[in-house]
Amino acid sequence: MTQIGFVGLGKMGGNMVHRIRRDSEHEVVAFDFDEKAVRQAVKSGASGAASLKDLVKQLQAPRIVWIMVPAGAPTQETVDKLAKLLDRGDTIVDGGNSKWTDDKLRSKQLKASGIEYVDVGVSGGVWGLEVGYCMMVGGPPRAVERLAPILDVLAPETNEQSLAAIGERGWLRFGPSGAGHYVKMVHNGVEYGLMQAYAEGFDVFDKCEYELDNAKIAHLWGQGSVVRSWLCELAARAFEADGNDLGAIEGYTEDSGEGRWTIEDATALDVPTPVITASLYARFRSRGNGDFADRVLAALRNQFGGHAVKSAPSKAAPAPTATPAPTPATAKAGSRRGGR
Amino acid sequence: MTQIGFVGLGKMGGNMVHRIRRDSEHEVVAFDFDEKAVRQAVKSGASGAASLKDLVKQLQAPRIVWIMVPAGAPTQETVDKLAKLLDRGDTIVDGGNSKWTDDKLRSKQLKASGIEYVDVGVSGGVWGLEVGYCMMVGGPPRAVERLAPILDVLAPETNEQSLAAIGERGWLRFGPSGAGHYVKMVHNGVEYGLMQAYAEGFDVFDKCEYELDNAKIAHLWGQGSVVRSWLCELAARAFEADGNDLGAIEGYTEDSGEGRWTIEDATALDVPTPVITASLYARFRSRGNGDFADRVLAALRNQFGGHAVKSAPSKAAPAPTATPAPTPATAKAGSRRGGR
Repeated sequence: MTQIGFVGLGKMGGNMVHRIRRDSEHEVVAFDFDEKAVRQAVKSGASGAASLKDLVKQLQAPRIVWIMVPAGAPTQETVDKLAKLLDRGDTIVDGGNSKWTDDKLRSKQLKASGIEYVDVGVSGGVWGLEVGYCMMVGGPPRAVERLAPILDVLAPETNEQSLAAIGERGWLRFGPSGAGHYVKMVHNGVEYGLMQAYAEGFDVFDKCEYELDNAKIAHLWGQGSVVRSWLCELAARAFEADGNDLGAIEGYTEDSGEGRWTIEDATALDVPTPVITASLYARFRSRGNGDFADRVLAALRNQFGGHAVKSAPSKAAPAPTATPAPTPATAKAGSRRGGR
Repeated sequence: MTQIGFVGLGKMGGNMVHRIRRDSEHEVVAFDFDEKAVRQAVKSGASGAASLKDLVKQLQAPRIVWIMVPAGAPTQETVDKLAKLLDRGDTIVDGGNSKWTDDKLRSKQLKASGIEYVDVGVSGGVWGLEVGYCMMVGGPPRAVERLAPILDVLAPETNEQSLAAIGERGWLRFGPSGAGHYVKMVHNGVEYGLMQAYAEGFDVFDKCEYELDNAKIAHLWGQGSVVRSWLCELAARAFEADGNDLGAIEGYTEDSGEGRWTIEDATALDVPTPVITASLYARFRSRGNGDFADRVLAALRNQFGGHAVKSAPSKAAPAPTATPAPTPATAKAGSRRGGR
């Protein structure tokens, strides 16, 4: 029986506490600034804590505290506060989406006080509660070993072949602090590429001369094709839920940093990553970025060839670049295929 | 019980004949220019044919002949020959990797003689024998219906959810002649993107500061992660078989056309496909193409900045561009990171 403190009981943390309590005898002490979330965790069988101090008090040394809050400042603040509350031999686990270089700094920061630091990159999203969480782990072997019973419950059961390759369950330690989030970071970079590849394929289907049912295609591809994947299954679900043209969905996609960090380190290592990079740029584009480049492009084309430019929708007057070219440029509303 | 003729008994055709005979009572008449392949098909329970003419003679009208030979000229020649041997009401099935526009032409070509034409895009590779083949079908509904019992045996068994979505087995008709190969073409474009995304991720792992076991990563990712897929399983197999650095493998990748056709039609439709395009270009690169652009790049950088250029390995004298720049350029052997 292992005892663990959980800080951060959102979609991920709350489900993880639920899975630990549902599937094992391990004890969980749970804290969140949102009291509702704490009450929910108590319903799952955790012991509720009123503060970080209370959480630490309820744990027996050597303690393990799993942080599951947004990466960046919220995680760093929690680590800083816990560093003051915990003792030599205790372990802090960061299960969020921290940048691997932050893990390295924190590991150093905590070394003086003898607190061990473990980083866990978690994949699986909201499906993890049922399927289990795929976890990529970095940190001192001894601390990871103490955490193992918790990881075993959170992880999916592995198939026989993978069991032989990676050990008991669906988690693996990859090296010192930072290694877990590093592997998870690249996982997300790959994920961007996979998602964009499917997205482009379905965009072609959407515009092509055939009337195609995207949900059926995604379902069919799940049956023995080379592109079968979990993301392809999710695509089938999405088209079934949101319609063949995803009309109710805005094409706006955030990124939580891992894609750009992947490219950042790939650049430092001289590794060309055209697909991962293009996938990140597609997300930038989806948010309306690149708009000024679009205007520069239109303006330049007008300058050298007198090609028509469209007036910006908010301005009544023609765009300022529409005057000096060889042929007077006219703003041509509604022509979306001027180049053809 | 359905009777079908099979022309082309290579890795794909041979396995398909084997699967039909192993898992059903359907009759197969098999022909290949390679007599060994015919003998193998006879062992699987097919009836061997000595020629296309013999094959047609052994089939009862209305006949179905499945062509499984390389796309382009070999397929067209087979269609042309069969067109002369078959009668009104017979059906030609092209299960190869034909371009969808060729299907449309052939469908028209055969219309006059009353022969129906069905195109089947087949995915699943050499694994199809056991798993079943994912098949994307185009052609006249009546002809496809006659072919259905054969498709049912070749296709994988579907799970319940997909059963509801796509019908009986893992195949689906998408529209008139050409629609099957069109969906399969885009499938392959997506496949290029997926493969390249994984490839880039593992390249980052190969160069990063951690000592990572790629097979273990691929196995772990198969356990509940967002990037789990069949290709990820194949990656685990590849690293297990060929080592962590794939040292025995040459990084040379062919393409069989579908990727470039996807981009071709995406371009005609004004659909941006940056990831699929980058994936195809990565394959061009893998074959040593882009070499002249590399030389132009090095030469230009030398011209404006006097940056060192490396002599081409086969030439003793410095490259001709290495002279006129502000600072005399010197061929700097062994410096692979001159820009840093």
